[in-house]
Amino acid sequence: MSKLRFAVLPGDYIGPEVMTEALRVLQAAATPAGLELEYQIADVGGAGIDNHGKALPDSTLEVCRSADAILFGSVGGPKWETLPPKDQPERAALLPLRKAFSLFANIRPGLLYSELTDASPLKTERIPDGIDIVCIRELTGGIYFGQPKTTTELENGEFQALDTMVYKTSEIERIAEVAAVTAKARGGRVCSVDKANVLETSVLWRKTVTAYFAKHHPELELSHMYVDNAAMQLARDPNQFDVLFTENMFGDILSDEMAVICGSLGMMSSASLGTGNNSHGHPFGLYEPAGGTAPDIAGKGVANPCAQILSGAMMLRYSFGQNELAAKIEAAVKKTVTADGLRTGDIAFGRNPVGTTAMADAIIANL
Amino acid sequence: MSKLRFAVLPGDYIGPEVMTEALRVLQAAATPAGLELEYQIADVGGAGIDNHGKALPDSTLEVCRSADAILFGSVGGPKWETLPPKDQPERAALLPLRKAFSLFANIRPGLLYSELTDASPLKTERIPDGIDIVCIRELTGGIYFGQPKTTTELENGEFQALDTMVYKTSEIERIAEVAAVTAKARGGRVCSVDKANVLETSVLWRKTVTAYFAKHHPELELSHMYVDNAAMQLARDPNQFDVLFTENMFGDILSDEMAVICGSLGMMSSASLGTGNNSHGHPFGLYEPAGGTAPDIAGKGVANPCAQILSGAMMLRYSFGQNELAAKIEAAVKKTVTADGLRTGDIAFGRNPVGTTAMADAIIANL
Ligand SMILES: CC(C)[C@H](C(=O)O)[C@@H](O)C(=O)O
Ligand SMILES: CC(C)[C@H](C(=O)O)[C@@H](O)C(=O)O
Repeated sequence: MSKLRFAVLPGDYIGPEVMTEALRVLQAAATPAGLELEYQIADVGGAGIDNHGKALPDSTLEVCRSADAILFGSVGGPKWETLPPKDQPERAALLPLRKAFSLFANIRPGLLYSELTDASPLKTERIPDGIDIVCIRELTGGIYFGQPKTTTELENGEFQALDTMVYKTSEIERIAEVAAVTAKARGGRVCSVDKANVLETSVLWRKTVTAYFAKHHPELELSHMYVDNAAMQLARDPNQFDVLFTENMFGDILSDEMAVICGSLGMMSSASLGTGNNSHGHPFGLYEPAGGTAPDIAGKGVANPCAQILSGAMMLRYSFGQNELAAKIEAAVKKTVTADGLRTGDIAFGRNPVGTTAMADAIIANL
Repeated sequence: MSKLRFAVLPGDYIGPEVMTEALRVLQAAATPAGLELEYQIADVGGAGIDNHGKALPDSTLEVCRSADAILFGSVGGPKWETLPPKDQPERAALLPLRKAFSLFANIRPGLLYSELTDASPLKTERIPDGIDIVCIRELTGGIYFGQPKTTTELENGEFQALDTMVYKTSEIERIAEVAAVTAKARGGRVCSVDKANVLETSVLWRKTVTAYFAKHHPELELSHMYVDNAAMQLARDPNQFDVLFTENMFGDILSDEMAVICGSLGMMSSASLGTGNNSHGHPFGLYEPAGGTAPDIAGKGVANPCAQILSGAMMLRYSFGQNELAAKIEAAVKKTVTADGLRTGDIAFGRNPVGTTAMADAIIANL
């Protein structure tokens, strides 16, 4: 029996609630397929701060190191809001994890079922068939990690702060490859987003991406767009994109805009892949819902578990090569929400909402 | 008779068409108010490149220097698309103008009349009363102008590119003042957008803005939001904002997202104010529509002149202190589009569209 070893970091508020359901669904899918789940649960985020004095405790990092993937819940919330921005659970957990495991490739499906267009803020006539795009975001370069980062006092008593955005050819090429592979499995179109009319890093980005696609993926359709225009086009007509591909900070902004345009955050999953291979010969990765900890509904058993479940499916696909099993879970989620019409409160729209556990039960029944 | 001296830079494609109408409206408003318009027209953008070899010809810069404000059309288009990104008309005209006149404060109304909600990509039930917010963008600092900006070849034949984001206290304070003054004339709420969980510049931004408001504008309601969240909230519920206030690059992205959410770009005006005062004791400023040159409809007489006309109204308000006259023009535009229901093609929605000149005629009749 093949073993899938992964770390489970549920996090805060609804994090543990939806994680419980995701693990049930994964278990229900894995067993008949002859796969054994072997996971270790560890504190992260606010739970890390409260129980170990650190958003990413060393013991948690150890658990992650001995695993082939991380299934991550969500972290943060009002309890830790008085901490300075840089010490807040989300930031203080995710950035070191990205760094520790070189999680350079963030993959976020922008998926909205046609039956769920009510959930999108966009007019239904703009997205009659729902939305189906993917955002690929570079995750370990750019202005997030670039050095120097300084704040200095000037002679006149003023302060000056400085951040550095840096990219080098190889960093751009490896994420271009992820965008290309993603596009190949879809519509074959990549729109690379930059600000090459102003930034040196964007000029290099555009040149490198253009050369890389010409050499390695000439069959793909590559286009370029400025980031300000991309922010417009996403809100105007998201389906004009197939694969949206961009650097770290632009991707932070655009993938969140995309998530909200795709309706409920409760449905949005993501994968962050590392550079090396795990013991299965697939990339180590961190898998997490795009949404937050939803403190307002925590403990009520009403949170939407789909994003966490779909993140689990992405883990099966990318870190364990279990494409069929991943597709099976995705199909079960889709059938539950669409054909069966089961909806948690965030996507109920007048229907009687079901709870977190009932939703997972139905998904398991649909496997 | 008081003279209003300004430079007129129509630019390319529909630029000159809508500029002609804006000048007619300004003239029709000014004359009865005892004001004389004294303007000089000069080439910019593609027209600058074609006629003088430069997107911002020296002669044009001279015309601007001898004026109290610049009324700008729009620039760029397919004709110059083969130029490298940094030489393209928009970038090569606007950045040097911002620098030459220290145009540090970009003011963009995010205004959608309740009668025009069809034009927005957002579901009408999300914006039943239209949209009425303002975006204040810092325009001469941050990563656009920060030094160093370099591309270097590394030892292994790779390239590394670098951009620098810099802000100092005084730059943040002066734009905070613009945000505060804007909020005071409106709902009294400012949401300052940054990425203080990752960027040093944002930490300084947040600290400085907080201290500045506490000291100088304690009566205003100040909140803070991360830029990724702001990109979501704008698309989800734009009217939760009153004044949205941010640094240069975030403002580039968010103000464009806001523009598209407010429906037709053909209605969106903007002001970019300088640091010093002009001969009227008001800030020198550049006034331009948020939209582009619309090459597809150029020469057909169907472009929407409203954005250019409303930019002219902003010029009267900010650079010439003619608040009443500005309000008069704004009211005439609103009446024409709403009560009278006259619509150019971009905002027609099934109505019979009117042309550029007919629209301006109606606005003049409504003055
Ligand atoms: C927590 C924060 C640093 C992080 C980011 O901006 O990358 C988050 O917003 C995300 O998008 O994953
Ligand atoms: C032309 C370009 C440099 C400019 C900018 O990004 O500032 C434009 O997009 C704008 O928003 O005015």
